Amino acid sequence: MKNPAGSASPTGPAGAPADAEALIRRRRALLGASYRLFYERPVHLVRGQDVWLYDADGKRYLDAYNNVPCVGHCHPRVVEAVARQMAVLNTHTRYLHETVLDYSERLLATYPDAFGHVMYTCTGSEAVDLALRIARHHTGGTGIVITANAYHGTTALTAGLSPSLGPNVPLGRDVWTVPAPDAYRQPGIDVGAKLAADIQAACADMRRHGVVPAAFVADGIFSTDGTLAEPAGFLRPALEAVHAEGALYIADEVQPGFGRTGAGLWGFARHGIVPDMAVMGKPMGNGLPIAGVALRPEVAERFGREVRYFNTFGANHASLAAAGAVLDIIEAGGLVANAAARGAQMMAGMRRLMERHAAIGDVRGAGLFLGLELVSDRAARTPDPVMARRLVNLMREDGVLISASGPYDNVLKIRPPLTFAAEHAELFLGALDEALGRLS
Amino acid sequence: MKNPAGSASPTGPAGAPADAEALIRRRRALLGASYRLFYERPVHLVRGQDVWLYDADGKRYLDAYNNVPCVGHCHPRVVEAVARQMAVLNTHTRYLHETVLDYSERLLATYPDAFGHVMYTCTGSEAVDLALRIARHHTGGTGIVITANAYHGTTALTAGLSPSLGPNVPLGRDVWTVPAPDAYRQPGIDVGAKLAADIQAACADMRRHGVVPAAFVADGIFSTDGTLAEPAGFLRPALEAVHAEGALYIADEVQPGFGRTGAGLWGFARHGIVPDMAVMGKPMGNGLPIAGVALRPEVAERFGREVRYFNTFGANHASLAAAGAVLDIIEAGGLVANAAARGAQMMAGMRRLMERHAAIGDVRGAGLFLGLELVSDRAARTPDPVMARRLVNLMREDGVLISASGPYDNVLKIRPPLTFAAEHAELFLGALDEALGRLS
Repeated sequence: MKNPAGSASPTGPAGAPADAEALIRRRRALLGASYRLFYERPVHLVRGQDVWLYDADGKRYLDAYNNVPCVGHCHPRVVEAVARQMAVLNTHTRYLHETVLDYSERLLATYPDAFGHVMYTCTGSEAVDLALRIARHHTGGTGIVITANAYHGTTALTAGLSPSLGPNVPLGRDVWTVPAPDAYRQPGIDVGAKLAADIQAACADMRRHGVVPAAFVADGIFSTDGTLAEPAGFLRPALEAVHAEGALYIADEVQPGFGRTGAGLWGFARHGIVPDMAVMGKPMGNGLPIAGVALRPEVAERFGREVRYFNTFGANHASLAAAGAVLDIIEAGGLVANAAARGAQMMAGMRRLMERHAAIGDVRGAGLFLGLELVSDRAARTPDPVMARRLVNLMREDGVLISASGPYDNVLKIRPPLTFAAEHAELFLGALDEALGRLS
Repeated sequence: MKNPAGSASPTGPAGAPADAEALIRRRRALLGASYRLFYERPVHLVRGQDVWLYDADGKRYLDAYNNVPCVGHCHPRVVEAVARQMAVLNTHTRYLHETVLDYSERLLATYPDAFGHVMYTCTGSEAVDLALRIARHHTGGTGIVITANAYHGTTALTAGLSPSLGPNVPLGRDVWTVPAPDAYRQPGIDVGAKLAADIQAACADMRRHGVVPAAFVADGIFSTDGTLAEPAGFLRPALEAVHAEGALYIADEVQPGFGRTGAGLWGFARHGIVPDMAVMGKPMGNGLPIAGVALRPEVAERFGREVRYFNTFGANHASLAAAGAVLDIIEAGGLVANAAARGAQMMAGMRRLMERHAAIGDVRGAGLFLGLELVSDRAARTPDPVMARRLVNLMREDGVLISASGPYDNVLKIRPPLTFAAEHAELFLGALDEALGRLS
């Protein structure tokens, strides 16, 4: 069982205060062992506001991790929009109503012209699952290519595309993996050309086994593969390789989407590609469950004609109200530009910290989706998951929430709300500097 | 493509008013052809309150169909609970918080003592999907037995357990179907014994193909199989047969759960059985997405030890606030008893209508989950889907919303909010009587 740095054992770590211990016991009894907590001393949260979370003792934490509350925790415009809508009507898509149409028009306007339809689910997992059902129906194939430490969801199908869940979760029989486009650990390599060649080889092997390729699925910032963002554009050859195989390119925008990467709303834009489908989720409703698939109409055509699709809560009015408010706030607050500016500030700050802290092997990312790779030997690029774990837990004690990820669990995953201000970035950098100093 | 009675073609039926036509065109363009509408003249809804829905022209409809708003549309206590919670904190289960523990304790207290854990998802589909992942992990098998016209969800796995979605959605390779326990169309047969024997035969055939049985999944009221409720207790032999095969019994309570069948909160209670897992969804949050799996701890044990489970929006605070309010309202309003009383009233009323209307072949159900079977020949029990379609559409014109289902699309599916009062039941019966009179 893979247990990411920063996750506590579910049976309750030593050192938690008495009330936390009691909560951990209740939790283990009620929810079972599958539920894992963050941090050696789990955080007992009682309140959230913008970039801050507060625990039961009134201690505040700078949230540099949660990508769901993209416009900040408990944003009053989101709360108000949901409450107003819930008091009037909250039902499903088998009746006519304008709410879903108005939002869909607005959402599709943020996509390239080739995207014509959007379909709604409640979670990113459901959206990836639906995109694959459509891709298989459209292509007649079943084979799926993913990267080696991908995460794409928690349904049976999408957990089977999620090697990052660890070896006890079997990959699907029709799933082939390729190495992630890691420019840091493959220096001097053209990662884009290599990824394309790897996809081509995977498809050839797939066909050799009698499996027809249906789709390549990639989170464009390769979050669980270690946050792999550069060089922008490296996904272009992959797209061509996928199309040459007659398969579809599914961009998993659940994590990079809605402006996080600081260049337009969608992560794929940074690579100058137009995929066949894009899957959205987490930040879409700032915490209310809403997710979906935007896609080229020609890809949806046969599925649409032959298969009816209905998701009871998909595009319910309450979730749509939240989603509309999220777009309002992103636009009115210039949050995409803010993600770019704050990301640049944090990137520059972390690069400066490299001069003082040999444990930082690399910093990378785009906008407010940043990775910091911890190594025990900078020249040899030796991953240091123990250091990552200590750092994540030390920063939690110091009031800054982050986590670690990547195939070696040694990459800090930094994804604050898009409302992060310059002072928050400085706070984060100061805390990181101090924690690294204490650990070295 | 199976198109259930009452569903309109997605390209827009004749007879819709101009504004509806425009909405239908926009909808087709934006959402694609997979999205189907109810009714030949789809309803354009703008407002809901308790058992009433209102269209854009101010016309009101008695909602006798929607099982999601179980405590009534837009219940103010639900709206207030969600708004209050969203303003304070709305995050996930990797931090400690009491909300999910308090709700879980309360929910598990409604289950038999053997149930010890609850795990959360956002939709019933995700919950069935998770229950099957756990069942497969626990048993080491993969085979699943379902009834012939079941519906269990819309993920790749659960759509593969949903023959009612029609022949264009392939069943899973490890899925075996058995005839539904239909006492109306198999008169004189002990449907419970037959179901158990059919499950046993399916498992034998499965093993003959090298597939090990993992689970039997059944919605205890067999909603899409035609609403099959009687005789209560008929599921006992099935449970024994499933256990004799070393497989798990998964009760799909997404539709019968939360008091609808009028005898306790859970549909399986009416049959005097204790399944291994129960899957909940639709009415759980009165429209906010929340769903889950309640289960025996021993069944979750190995999965919990070896597989971590995290669903980003599963058990988010906002959805939990809605779910808590739903339990409050069900308890305070005596809504389970009301479901029993109103169900009995409607059943008696529909039985009286049989005397005047030869088209009614059978009425059945439990609590406020009722089915009315339309036939062209009562003695021969010949299904009449055309009559069902006309009736559903005529009642819509008369301001009463229902739908039709079942393997022949000839069974009216009647599932009003649990707040249905005696006067609403009389209104429904009057409208049904009049529509049947006009159609005969």
